[in-house]
Amino acid sequence: MPVIEIHMLEGRDLGKKKALVKNVTRAVCESLDVKPETVRIILSEMSRENYAAAGTLFCEKQSL
Amino acid sequence: MPVIEIHMLEGRDLGKKKALVKNVTRAVCESLDVKPETVRIILSEMSRENYAAAGTLFCEKQSL
Amino acid sequence: MPVIEIHMLEGRDLGKKKALVKNVTRAVCESLDVKPETVRIILSEMSRENYAAAGTLFCEKQSL
Amino acid sequence: MPVIEIHMLEGRDLGKKKALVKNVTRAVCESLDVKPETVRIILSEMSRENYAAAGTLFCEKQSL
Amino acid sequence: MPVIEIHMLEGRDLGKKKALVKNVTRAVCESLDVKPETVRIILSEMSRENYAAAGTLFCEKQSL
Amino acid sequence: MPVIEIHMLEGRDLGKKKALVKNVTRAVCESLDVKPETVRIILSEMSRENYAAAGTLFCEKQSL
Repeated sequence: MPVIEIHMLEGRDLGKKKALVKNVTRAVCESLDVKPETVRIILSEMSRENYAAAGTLFCEKQSL
Repeated sequence: MPVIEIHMLEGRDLGKKKALVKNVTRAVCESLDVKPETVRIILSEMSRENYAAAGTLFCEKQSL
Repeated sequence: MPVIEIHMLEGRDLGKKKALVKNVTRAVCESLDVKPETVRIILSEMSRENYAAAGTLFCEKQSL
Repeated sequence: MPVIEIHMLEGRDLGKKKALVKNVTRAVCESLDVKPETVRIILSEMSRENYAAAGTLFCEKQSL
Repeated sequence: MPVIEIHMLEGRDLGKKKALVKNVTRAVCESLDVKPETVRIILSEMSRENYAAAGTLFCEKQSL
Repeated sequence: MPVIEIHMLEGRDLGKKKALVKNVTRAVCESLDVKPETVRIILSEMSRENYAAAGTLFCEKQSL
């Protein structure tokens, strides 16, 4: 009964989110031999003001 | 000094949230024998576009 | 379908853990009006070397 | 630059873990159109004493 | 390649967030002897309706 | 009252952990103008079998 949290920059549309949870669930089920009904996925979206790499917020950078 | 994060679908009103943190804090204190002042609770609300079970987002389903 | 993560210092015995998940699940169900089958709880135990308050690890302090 | 945390019951061997991170990374990259180098995955294993559904720890149940 | 999540009450302006990720990244690099490029920081802001201590939400209290 | 979780590869000795929580707490306090007593830090250590970048576990790579 895996629980998966995906932190990602905000801005993906509903179609991408649907594809994401469908594809990740399939990858988890095939890899761990569990049933899809047991898999829960939380999408945790971050604004570019709330995510940093190398000490710099993404809103201070150009590209994704 | 427990720290508790509760992921739940968004949409609960303030009264429900008040009851939730009060009741969960009491349950933790009684079970673990700690003082209420040491317990912190983070409510992490998810939209129905950001939570999935069995590979399907909740916004694609009817009921909670 | 709430997912709850409880961070706490390690060392609680099985009886306390059983009571904790039972009591917290009940508190969540009563407060949010959800069914117990939908509630998952993750216990995330920390050693005293891996938890700090006020800039000091718990292994450097006397009491819990 | 997604960061993914997968909470799962402990006991999977190294081969399953290798497959899991490879397959989930591919699923994320294809769904979100990001490069593999940007994807980090944290595997967070739980003992059956530390994971509960419906108010009952997994060590109190028979099957996964 | 540390990943850091900072849960904090919402309301800090961009300048404070910039300083926060810069200073925490430096503290992590100096303490663990890692390079800044490997450090990612997620800022997870909570409203006062979604954070509690001692069983009481922050929106029910006066001060931070 | 920030709560900080630091995910990092296991293997740091107690001295490094002490320095880490001391320095990160100071960085947070100076940046956000909060008191040290309000800051909690959780160190979440990962084995090299449980952390991946670019679809590959760290135990399959040479260097940190």
